[in-house]
Amino acid sequence: MAFYGSNLRVTVFGQSHAAAIGVTIDGLPAGEAIDIEALEAFLARRAPGQNRMTTQRKEPDKPEILCGFLDGHTCGAPLTAVIRNTDTRSKDYAAIADLPRPSHADWPADVKYGGWQDVRGGGAFSARLTAPLCIAGGIALQLLERRGIRVAAHIRSIGSAEDRPFNPLGEPDEVLEARLGRTPVTLSDEAAAAMQAEVEAARKSADSVGGVIECMISGMPVGLGGPLFEGLDGRIAQAVFGIPAVKGVEFGLGFEASRLRGSQNNDPYGMVGGRVTPLTNRAGGIAGGITTGRPIIFRVALKPTPSIGRPQQTVSLKGQCDAELKVTGRHDPCVAVRAVPIVEAVAAVAALDALLDAPARLPDVPRRGA
Amino acid sequence: MAFYGSNLRVTVFGQSHAAAIGVTIDGLPAGEAIDIEALEAFLARRAPGQNRMTTQRKEPDKPEILCGFLDGHTCGAPLTAVIRNTDTRSKDYAAIADLPRPSHADWPADVKYGGWQDVRGGGAFSARLTAPLCIAGGIALQLLERRGIRVAAHIRSIGSAEDRPFNPLGEPDEVLEARLGRTPVTLSDEAAAAMQAEVEAARKSADSVGGVIECMISGMPVGLGGPLFEGLDGRIAQAVFGIPAVKGVEFGLGFEASRLRGSQNNDPYGMVGGRVTPLTNRAGGIAGGITTGRPIIFRVALKPTPSIGRPQQTVSLKGQCDAELKVTGRHDPCVAVRAVPIVEAVAAVAALDALLDAPARLPDVPRRGA
Amino acid sequence: MAFYGSNLRVTVFGQSHAAAIGVTIDGLPAGEAIDIEALEAFLARRAPGQNRMTTQRKEPDKPEILCGFLDGHTCGAPLTAVIRNTDTRSKDYAAIADLPRPSHADWPADVKYGGWQDVRGGGAFSARLTAPLCIAGGIALQLLERRGIRVAAHIRSIGSAEDRPFNPLGEPDEVLEARLGRTPVTLSDEAAAAMQAEVEAARKSADSVGGVIECMISGMPVGLGGPLFEGLDGRIAQAVFGIPAVKGVEFGLGFEASRLRGSQNNDPYGMVGGRVTPLTNRAGGIAGGITTGRPIIFRVALKPTPSIGRPQQTVSLKGQCDAELKVTGRHDPCVAVRAVPIVEAVAAVAALDALLDAPARLPDVPRRGA
Amino acid sequence: MAFYGSNLRVTVFGQSHAAAIGVTIDGLPAGEAIDIEALEAFLARRAPGQNRMTTQRKEPDKPEILCGFLDGHTCGAPLTAVIRNTDTRSKDYAAIADLPRPSHADWPADVKYGGWQDVRGGGAFSARLTAPLCIAGGIALQLLERRGIRVAAHIRSIGSAEDRPFNPLGEPDEVLEARLGRTPVTLSDEAAAAMQAEVEAARKSADSVGGVIECMISGMPVGLGGPLFEGLDGRIAQAVFGIPAVKGVEFGLGFEASRLRGSQNNDPYGMVGGRVTPLTNRAGGIAGGITTGRPIIFRVALKPTPSIGRPQQTVSLKGQCDAELKVTGRHDPCVAVRAVPIVEAVAAVAALDALLDAPARLPDVPRRGA
Repeated sequence: MAFYGSNLRVTVFGQSHAAAIGVTIDGLPAGEAIDIEALEAFLARRAPGQNRMTTQRKEPDKPEILCGFLDGHTCGAPLTAVIRNTDTRSKDYAAIADLPRPSHADWPADVKYGGWQDVRGGGAFSARLTAPLCIAGGIALQLLERRGIRVAAHIRSIGSAEDRPFNPLGEPDEVLEARLGRTPVTLSDEAAAAMQAEVEAARKSADSVGGVIECMISGMPVGLGGPLFEGLDGRIAQAVFGIPAVKGVEFGLGFEASRLRGSQNNDPYGMVGGRVTPLTNRAGGIAGGITTGRPIIFRVALKPTPSIGRPQQTVSLKGQCDAELKVTGRHDPCVAVRAVPIVEAVAAVAALDALLDAPARLPDVPRRGA
Repeated sequence: MAFYGSNLRVTVFGQSHAAAIGVTIDGLPAGEAIDIEALEAFLARRAPGQNRMTTQRKEPDKPEILCGFLDGHTCGAPLTAVIRNTDTRSKDYAAIADLPRPSHADWPADVKYGGWQDVRGGGAFSARLTAPLCIAGGIALQLLERRGIRVAAHIRSIGSAEDRPFNPLGEPDEVLEARLGRTPVTLSDEAAAAMQAEVEAARKSADSVGGVIECMISGMPVGLGGPLFEGLDGRIAQAVFGIPAVKGVEFGLGFEASRLRGSQNNDPYGMVGGRVTPLTNRAGGIAGGITTGRPIIFRVALKPTPSIGRPQQTVSLKGQCDAELKVTGRHDPCVAVRAVPIVEAVAAVAALDALLDAPARLPDVPRRGA
Repeated sequence: MAFYGSNLRVTVFGQSHAAAIGVTIDGLPAGEAIDIEALEAFLARRAPGQNRMTTQRKEPDKPEILCGFLDGHTCGAPLTAVIRNTDTRSKDYAAIADLPRPSHADWPADVKYGGWQDVRGGGAFSARLTAPLCIAGGIALQLLERRGIRVAAHIRSIGSAEDRPFNPLGEPDEVLEARLGRTPVTLSDEAAAAMQAEVEAARKSADSVGGVIECMISGMPVGLGGPLFEGLDGRIAQAVFGIPAVKGVEFGLGFEASRLRGSQNNDPYGMVGGRVTPLTNRAGGIAGGITTGRPIIFRVALKPTPSIGRPQQTVSLKGQCDAELKVTGRHDPCVAVRAVPIVEAVAAVAALDALLDAPARLPDVPRRGA
Repeated sequence: MAFYGSNLRVTVFGQSHAAAIGVTIDGLPAGEAIDIEALEAFLARRAPGQNRMTTQRKEPDKPEILCGFLDGHTCGAPLTAVIRNTDTRSKDYAAIADLPRPSHADWPADVKYGGWQDVRGGGAFSARLTAPLCIAGGIALQLLERRGIRVAAHIRSIGSAEDRPFNPLGEPDEVLEARLGRTPVTLSDEAAAAMQAEVEAARKSADSVGGVIECMISGMPVGLGGPLFEGLDGRIAQAVFGIPAVKGVEFGLGFEASRLRGSQNNDPYGMVGGRVTPLTNRAGGIAGGITTGRPIIFRVALKPTPSIGRPQQTVSLKGQCDAELKVTGRHDPCVAVRAVPIVEAVAAVAALDALLDAPARLPDVPRRGA
């Protein structure tokens, strides 16, 4: 299902070489200003062609908002935005269809759809579909920021080059800084340089390299989410796995927590500024599926771009025999570089969706005992 | 929402000290034999009191199937099963309510529900709610196994003690073996012993320890899942995060893939036994969100049990001041030990749900070009 | 799907002769007092054995709340309530399975489930399943009434005996009165007597008779619902068709509106008590899918009980030949008589679900131009 | 929620004067030929300007399929189609916003959205949004027809002019004929003439008139739908209420059944051509929520167009005082005339959605006892 959300229902559509790609956002509250320039600036952060680390294709990705938007504000009706695919030449794609690219969806999709799927440029499985995700996320971000909720991601690692982690008790300033400036987006200059080297080395060897994105959502109120399948971590994870190339998600200390003792992993409480507050944030802002008021922090593992310049072993579907494939065309040697705003986008969609949940207690019901 | 699934709709209900806990499974196909003894044996694998590594509480967890089941078979109506909570003494739980346990849901739930939540024994956030999950999963497993799909998990690590990983091209025999015999459930005897030592050490220091569960689903047909939010990995991840204490999920090489080159991570294709097949399985059985026919393999990070015997810093909600808490009672020092069947259960539910998806192509539509 | 609701997710389960029937309500706000006596009184209105117009079976329908309820209040966790089926003797039901009763689900269900369905007493299609619907509705009613929203239904007609309609600008007093006193529940004594005669006549001729229930929801705020599939009328209709034997639903003037001119059907606006108000209520409280502040009024057509004492033509499924069937046992000659609280129940569930919708505008966004 | 369907997920978007209106259909099976000419011919049946009974506005409603469609076939990805709104002049619409039109959504929408809604031409509540519904329905129809399922509607009545009803045991030929030829679409010439007279009379008196559409779905297999909220009648009703101006829905004898005896309303079974078959079809093809194999027949009550030329009483929202409104512009005096294909469209969407349901029994499970 091309669909995410309980309250903010986001449907992504399009294929890489169809007439257009786009998104419909149903459930967007009315009367929300959307700054189109800011939205386009957000989309531009995802766009290729920014520097040597990303593919050189020109892809303006200028969204057209078809509906749901009036006089600079949402109007309560579903908002649909589309991006025209300008490069949709109907080449002979029989060749593409015959030799499935390793670790792409090509072959399993061929089985699923019986050959009827759009194979041009990856079709509905193309990373290009993350552009409409970013439209939805970019809009969600504006609603969140207006309410003191900030979403920011950085590249935590590319190959063996690592950035320092977010401060788990992090401040908004750091959060904002994280989104600015460096390419790739890191907290430290050294990390950016080391990552550039990793990407360059991969490119030179006609190869690609994976990475990890770390994302922080700060300013969320305490008490969002719930037990079991209502947990906000699960809802964020579901959104994150909507991004192609994601292979893992972890919150707070994540997999590291599996190696620790409870006394090392627990977050004790204290009174801070007159309020109950977890004094540490090993949980990544979510305990028992519910926000704790500390920043939500999660990391996303992205595999190396499966399209590589080296010859690879595959099969000919037509011939039903082994074959060799050399993927041509320009490809990002590291999907993580452009994934920073994409992770922010899905985080923002999940966060806004949670904010719109029906309340666990109606406004006219006082606290127990009060 | 206490609810999972698109086709197999699983609703879990109950609190630790309510009259009962249970599950409703809607969408279960009719005419499916359910072997109650096998189901109870599956549930027994989760139950405490099996050995020194788990709590000594007696908890028979005998489910009563209230409906949806007739003459040994499903009847097409929703199946509801409940487990009576035998130990629901109405103690004075004001004390529990006052001092939130670190890294439990206690405090964020208190904020969310305004103090109206059931705090006894963790209420709706108790790990006891995994028993109804296991009922749903145990039933789903029987449907899957009948169709050649096997689900098996083992403990991959506890603290620093590691088991060897599943063979990613694994055989059903190995899969079945994994579920049998050892405590904790591991592939190697040495790992089991090392893990026992880790758990024992944690217990002796009034502490707890985390772990990682690795799960394999073998025998799934090629072509289940889809792009973006339809991806089977995302649907499994969503189910897995329904388990309390989960902090991360990764598929195939997972986070390790982020450190690799594409040439190291890609799965080339070859003809095996006359069929297109990925020759390696770094992807963990899912590419582009779709099953590849290779076993689905994922790992789940579980944090150390937050209930530990050591004194911890917390706050008094009543007094709005700092306080010290010493959690009493018997608690598993490592939730991972009992989590093996729980992970299998949610994997089975997610797998069966995917199997019941509407087909991507109607049966009367031939392959393109055929 | 045995499931209704966007925010208040109601799952009904059980079969007529299973161990139990019941309901799970997920999404119920926390801290809501539930008066169990009032709930049982509501359920008693549905129960048979009240007078000559209904079947004489004894069916106490005492619900047991298994979870979600603590110290007299909802606790935010899913609330599950079950009613034990005391009469579940495992008779030989091969005979029942062979001769499908006309206009029951027997035969189409047999095709759908391939004979695996529970045929005893109608199984999952039994009108007995309306008892758990009434539990959900009876709880929803208490939340609504506390907030000035009243739901009341009366029998508008049985056969040719008609009650006067609700006053479409109706007052709460009338609404409350409607639920009290008469059997069957009517607004006028004369109608009750005429309906009793209709039912008695049907019974005497070993036949049954249909009826229409009219329901009013008063006190709903203006602005609930929305365009297209978000319309509150469609959401109520969907809930109403969950009641067995329903063959039609109409709002306001309903089918009568199809015979009128716009000038006769439109509801002009005026200022009433300083507020914009529709001066008439031909729409039945919903215009363009959205509440107008006037009472929501709808009517539900119920077919005559399909179980009748007269011999009927059917087939032997085993013999694949024509056969004659004489339905034995006690059956209500008119399902409408007991359907009054059932219609109120589904109306209450739909109304509460709508009340819990995410707001169309966030609280911090002022009116446009304000 | 602008969304319908469990398997075929249809999201409608757009406002009357936005840049575009459109629809996304997710879950459409792959490999289905779509005849674009046939689709446009279907849409043309809804379009205005056909004759004197409908408004004279020019509205070509030529859909552009943006994605999900390749080489004449569906490709398994979501299909999005848009229709550009050519007449979206940004007039001063402050006047429109001030004087809500009686029995339109204007005022309740203003309350709901706090004035932020798009008021131009009815915005998201405009009947123009039925064009994308017809795109979805027109596509669904092609899939159904290819499999022997036919959907056809006619105008059963306008004001007091009545057409003869469908033969409930109707033949496909009659069904097809019903869609052809006459304006308005009726089964008899006399009815068409009488209806023309009704519409003309309404127009001449600057008024409008309501009507009833009757729809038949023939060829559906036995066994679709299910108990309670799974009933196919409820799912069709939900879809039908997505059409603006609908005030009621009834199946089979519908409200008439409420006046009948069981012996008059029941459908006895017999062996017909070696198959179990209901000998009559008073139920309208659905018993106990499940298809019986007889045609599904339902009727839809449509209110008279609320926009009438006569002066009407309303209020000035700005002045908070009574006011008079004279709706100008061209409006259909009878929405029922153009609603025939719209009802067919939602029926087709609901029918295809049901066809795509997960099976009640897996293919490898034999009938009980077989």
